[in-house]
Amino acid sequence: MTDGPVRQASLREHNLGLVLRQAANALRPPSRADIAAATSLTRATVSALVDDLIAGGLLTEVEPTPRAGAGRPAAGLVLSASGPAGLGLEINVDYLSACVVDLAGTVRHRDVRRADQRPGGPDQVLAEVAGLAADARAHAEREGLVLAGAALAVPGLVTPEGVVRLAPNLGWRDVDVPAAFDGLPVTVDNEANLAALGELHAGPGGPASFLYVSGEIGIGAGIVLHGTLFRGARGWSGELGHVAVRPDGPACRCGARGCLEQYAGQEAILRAAAATGTEDLRVRAESGELAVLGALAAAGEALGVAVAGVVNLLDVEAVVLGGVYAPLAPWLRPAVAAEIRSRVLTDAWSPVDVRPSVLGADAAVVGAAGSVVRTIRNHPARWLTRTVS
Amino acid sequence: MTDGPVRQASLREHNLGLVLRQAANALRPPSRADIAAATSLTRATVSALVDDLIAGGLLTEVEPTPRAGAGRPAAGLVLSASGPAGLGLEINVDYLSACVVDLAGTVRHRDVRRADQRPGGPDQVLAEVAGLAADARAHAEREGLVLAGAALAVPGLVTPEGVVRLAPNLGWRDVDVPAAFDGLPVTVDNEANLAALGELHAGPGGPASFLYVSGEIGIGAGIVLHGTLFRGARGWSGELGHVAVRPDGPACRCGARGCLEQYAGQEAILRAAAATGTEDLRVRAESGELAVLGALAAAGEALGVAVAGVVNLLDVEAVVLGGVYAPLAPWLRPAVAAEIRSRVLTDAWSPVDVRPSVLGADAAVVGAAGSVVRTIRNHPARWLTRTVS
Repeated sequence: MTDGPVRQASLREHNLGLVLRQAANALRPPSRADIAAATSLTRATVSALVDDLIAGGLLTEVEPTPRAGAGRPAAGLVLSASGPAGLGLEINVDYLSACVVDLAGTVRHRDVRRADQRPGGPDQVLAEVAGLAADARAHAEREGLVLAGAALAVPGLVTPEGVVRLAPNLGWRDVDVPAAFDGLPVTVDNEANLAALGELHAGPGGPASFLYVSGEIGIGAGIVLHGTLFRGARGWSGELGHVAVRPDGPACRCGARGCLEQYAGQEAILRAAAATGTEDLRVRAESGELAVLGALAAAGEALGVAVAGVVNLLDVEAVVLGGVYAPLAPWLRPAVAAEIRSRVLTDAWSPVDVRPSVLGADAAVVGAAGSVVRTIRNHPARWLTRTVS
Repeated sequence: MTDGPVRQASLREHNLGLVLRQAANALRPPSRADIAAATSLTRATVSALVDDLIAGGLLTEVEPTPRAGAGRPAAGLVLSASGPAGLGLEINVDYLSACVVDLAGTVRHRDVRRADQRPGGPDQVLAEVAGLAADARAHAEREGLVLAGAALAVPGLVTPEGVVRLAPNLGWRDVDVPAAFDGLPVTVDNEANLAALGELHAGPGGPASFLYVSGEIGIGAGIVLHGTLFRGARGWSGELGHVAVRPDGPACRCGARGCLEQYAGQEAILRAAAATGTEDLRVRAESGELAVLGALAAAGEALGVAVAGVVNLLDVEAVVLGGVYAPLAPWLRPAVAAEIRSRVLTDAWSPVDVRPSVLGADAAVVGAAGSVVRTIRNHPARWLTRTVS
C-alpha cells in the first residue's frame, strides 16, 4: 500500500541522493544549474534539495572560479568538510586504532596504540577502544565535524548483531561488542571485510572481483565478487588463514595443522627473520639482508599456494595485499605471483593482478570509517531526518 | 520505448509462465479454476492461456480424481509427457553419455558409452557425440517427444560461446563445439557447473549455498552461492582439482605439483587400490577389502583438506559429492567430514553437511538436459512462438 505522500517522500529521498552524488562525483564543483542539467530535475527542485543538503551540513557552497566572458559565475557545490563524519575503530592482536573520515572521504584524524591486546581480555580492550573513540570524537568536534556513527573492525567472526563469535588470535569467544558502547551507534564487522569494502570504494577503475588478503597476526580475507562483498552462507567467509598449506604442518592455534597462518602470519615471518616488527623487517629487506629476504620469500610462497587455490576456485581478477602485507608487498608479491603463474590453470590467458592495498596498512580502519560515510552518501535523507529530530 | 501491444505481449508471457508453474508445482493436478484462484487471474484468462499451453504441447489434461459430493469434478492439468524435452550430452575422459529429460523432469532415455576419449581427439569425439544425439533424438521421437535443444557438459573451461578453451585431461584446447553440430541448438558448459545447477533444481529444501564436487579423472567444482551458480569473474571458476594439497607433491598434468587430482582423481584412486574401475572399487570396498578401504580413505582425506579450505573461505552450507564420488560416498564421506570438522573454524556451531549428489553419478548429463527443460518452463512463450513459426 503506497499512497501519494509516501511516494512523494521516497521520491524526495531518491532525489536528495541524486543531487548529493552529483556534487560528490563531479570533476569540478557543479552549480545548481549544472546539477539540474545533469539530473533533468527542474532548477526549482534542485535549489530546494540543495538548500536542505546545505542546512543538514552535507553540502557547502564554494566561491566560483572566475571565468572569461560576461556574467557573474554561479557558486559551486562541494561535500561539506565540516558536516557528518564516520569513526572507524579497529581492534587487532597487536594494536588498536581509530580514524575519522569526512563526507568527502578525507582522513581527518588517525590514532594507533601499539600493544599486545591478548593479555587484557575483552573488557579491558573494549574500554580502551571506547577511550580512543572519545578522543576521536573530541578531535572531530574541534574540527567542526559531527560523528554520524562508528564501525569497529575485529580480527574474527562477527554476527550481524555485532557479537564476536570467535577471534582465535585474540582468544575471544562470544563477546557482545555493541553493549560495551553507549551513546555512539557502533556496527561491528570482520576487519578483512571492512578493508575489502574500503578497497572496493577507494576509487573507480578497480577490479569488480578480487580477493583482499589481510596479513596481520592472523590472516583474513574479504571476497568481493561482481562488485559485492560475499559474506558466506552464514556470515563466516574469508578464513584464508586456516586454509592448509601442508596438511601435516605445524600445529595452529585453531586446533588444526599446517594452516597458512603458521607460514605467512606476521609472527611466523618475524620469527623466521628474527625481526622485531614490520618496520624492522621492511628496513632490513630494503637493505638486502638475506635472512629477511628468505623469510619473506618463504612466506610469499606459502601465501601464493593458498591464494592460487582461491584463484583456481573463484577466478578473481585481482589479489590485493593488505595489512602488514601492504608495506611488505615489494618482497611478497614476486613469490605470490609466481605461485599463481604456475598453479592457476587459466593464468596464461586470464592473468591475475597481484598488488598492494590502495589504502595501505590502514585499509580496515579507513574502510570502517568509510562505511559510515557511505551510508550517509547513499541515504542522505536519513541523516537529514535525524538532524531535525 | 514500450507501447501498448508490447506490454500486452510481455504480460501474456509472464502469465503463461505463471500458469505453467502452477501446474508444475501443485501437489495434485490443478483445474483451471484452481489456477485462477491461486493466481488471481480471471477464469477466462486462465482458460485461454491453458488452451495455448495445451496446443503448444506443454500441458495435458488428465481425468479428474472422483470426489465425494455432487457435481462432476473438473479435469486436472499436468506437464505434458509428450511435449518438448531436453537433450543432455556429456563428454568425459572415459565415457560419453546422453540423456533425454521431459518437461516434468523425468529421465526418458539414457545412453552411456565407456571408452577412453583421449586418443580420438576432438573431431572423432564430437562426431561420436553427434551420433549419440541422433540416437537420442530418434528415441525421443518414438516416445512422442520433441527435442527443444541440447546442452553439452565437458570437463573443461568453456567460453560463453561454447568454445572449450582448455580441457587438460582430454588434451583439448580451443575447440569450437557448436560448429560441430548442425540443426540442433547446443549450449556447452563445464560439467561441474551443469551438475551443480541440476542439484540446485533437483528439489525443494536443498541448501542455497553449496560446493558441488565432481569426481572424475579430473576434479571440478560447481559453486552455488545464495541460490545462484557463481561462474567466476571471467567464467573460469571451480578448478578444485588444481588446488594444492601438498605444494611439493607429485607432478600434475597442468604443470604444477601436488594438485588435488593427483591424490583424489579417479585414476589416482584406482591406481592406489589396484582396481579396474569404479564398480570394481565399490564392490571390493563393500566386501571390506583393506587395500581398497585405505585407498578411499586417503583420497577422502586429500579431498577433505581441499574442501575444508573452500569451506573456510566461502562458508558454504553443504558439500555435495558427485561424479564417481557419488557411489563411493559411503567410504569418502567420513574422511571428508573429519577434515572439515578439524580444519573449519566455524564447524563447531555451523556444521557443514557432506552428502552424495541427489542425481548420483549422472548429475552432469541430467543437469544438462534439465537446463534445456528449465528454460522452457521459465519462458514458455518463447517455445510457443517457436512452434507456430
